[in-house]
Amino acid sequence: MDKNRRPLILVTNDDGMFAPGIRNLVEIARHMGEVIVVAPNSPQSAKGHAVTLADPIRLNKVNVFDNIEAYECSGTPVDCVKLAKNILLKNRKIDLCVSGINHGSNASINILYSGTISAAMEASIEGINSIGFSLEDYDMNANFKPATPWVKSIMEYVLSNSLVGSKLLNVNIPHPSLGPIRGMKVCRQAEGRWEEEFVEGEDPRGQKFYWLTGNFATHDTGPGTDINALREGYISIVPSLHDLTHHKAIPSLISLEGINPII
Amino acid sequence: MDKNRRPLILVTNDDGMFAPGIRNLVEIARHMGEVIVVAPNSPQSAKGHAVTLADPIRLNKVNVFDNIEAYECSGTPVDCVKLAKNILLKNRKIDLCVSGINHGSNASINILYSGTISAAMEASIEGINSIGFSLEDYDMNANFKPATPWVKSIMEYVLSNSLVGSKLLNVNIPHPSLGPIRGMKVCRQAEGRWEEEFVEGEDPRGQKFYWLTGNFATHDTGPGTDINALREGYISIVPSLHDLTHHKAIPSLISLEGINPII
Repeated sequence: MDKNRRPLILVTNDDGMFAPGIRNLVEIARHMGEVIVVAPNSPQSAKGHAVTLADPIRLNKVNVFDNIEAYECSGTPVDCVKLAKNILLKNRKIDLCVSGINHGSNASINILYSGTISAAMEASIEGINSIGFSLEDYDMNANFKPATPWVKSIMEYVLSNSLVGSKLLNVNIPHPSLGPIRGMKVCRQAEGRWEEEFVEGEDPRGQKFYWLTGNFATHDTGPGTDINALREGYISIVPSLHDLTHHKAIPSLISLEGINPII
Repeated sequence: MDKNRRPLILVTNDDGMFAPGIRNLVEIARHMGEVIVVAPNSPQSAKGHAVTLADPIRLNKVNVFDNIEAYECSGTPVDCVKLAKNILLKNRKIDLCVSGINHGSNASINILYSGTISAAMEASIEGINSIGFSLEDYDMNANFKPATPWVKSIMEYVLSNSLVGSKLLNVNIPHPSLGPIRGMKVCRQAEGRWEEEFVEGEDPRGQKFYWLTGNFATHDTGPGTDINALREGYISIVPSLHDLTHHKAIPSLISLEGINPII
């Protein structure tokens, strides 16, 4: 990075412009560089890596943060990043993309469902250093104060050192009720899944519906997981990839190449 | 698998129940076991790993395939798999989940955007052997005939051998215009990205909109990629993970653990 230039920082999330989490991130970022905010105009939790193909997308300039350029976008979190890069910044070099701070954990398998992390991942596909931040507290009045100096340190680290190999960090911050943050741990993604239940009901017209709910479960007792770090009161940092290839499984499948079906 | 029991096969997609691609898959699957179809009731291309949290979901039993139980679902492809497993099959063991055959390639980075592959990945998170099939032809009248014996062979292989380590295969079939399929190659996901453009326009009320378009681009010239296999007329098979950890990057980040911000 050119030392004489202020870094350009893109801020986004999946909870929208008025979520306290993004306000905290903007307040941190504004001291580090030139900031632009592009966030969805509706809640986009659990939208994963969805993009909007079949509909037009709207961008609306809004005056939400003092002296910070900010836009509401009618699309998904990934759309926000695409529009920021292509339309608003006209492919200027973005030095850092930060997404969040999400209200709720995105550790373990939640990385796949999360709009917050998908936005950061989209930036990482473009070669931009990217960080998804999440706080293990779903409350809209969650206390982000204890997390602030740590979030600042991680952003400063990435701005100074860049990221090698993988351009995406999935950062989760322990629930404030666990007490003071004990430190940071670089982790692997815990194996986990949602144990779903569907609440069944009838709408006012007597039509049946299902409504998704459930609990996150992990049976991964191995060392070095993000879930473990969080339980112990540490911030978890998982360097994450958009190459999903299971390289180790390739040799076990080579016999498939020999199959010639009867055509 | 119990040899005296017919395998239970879940079929889904992201193009909906009337796409020729899913009809082809159902016709293949019905000769291999007990089939249940759960597909979205609206196009869900590029919905990635989105799930529906803020709205109720509807399931509608439909009579589309002779003697095959089939349901339309108002949610995303991932919702289809969750509802099939939890509500319709009441957690019976599913031996194979197949998704597709998608109209259009899901090779390289498209695995992240694809509703088709996300549905199969959701099943794989549940420990179910899963295959996402895509044909490199977006045409709704695409010719699936040359692909059929190959799709059948891959499904038979997975039913007989199961998958180790990773439970998900991302299978792409070359464009029929390339001539007869030359065989199958087990591959890695090519590094690639979309070079986006947004068409800018004005709606009838004079409001500005952006509409996403673009071209897929890859500069990955290394060996063993799915894109290369497809270009050479081979079916590409990529074993794929839901653990996104970049394990090799962990040591490079350990210095972060030593940072103690001033609080």
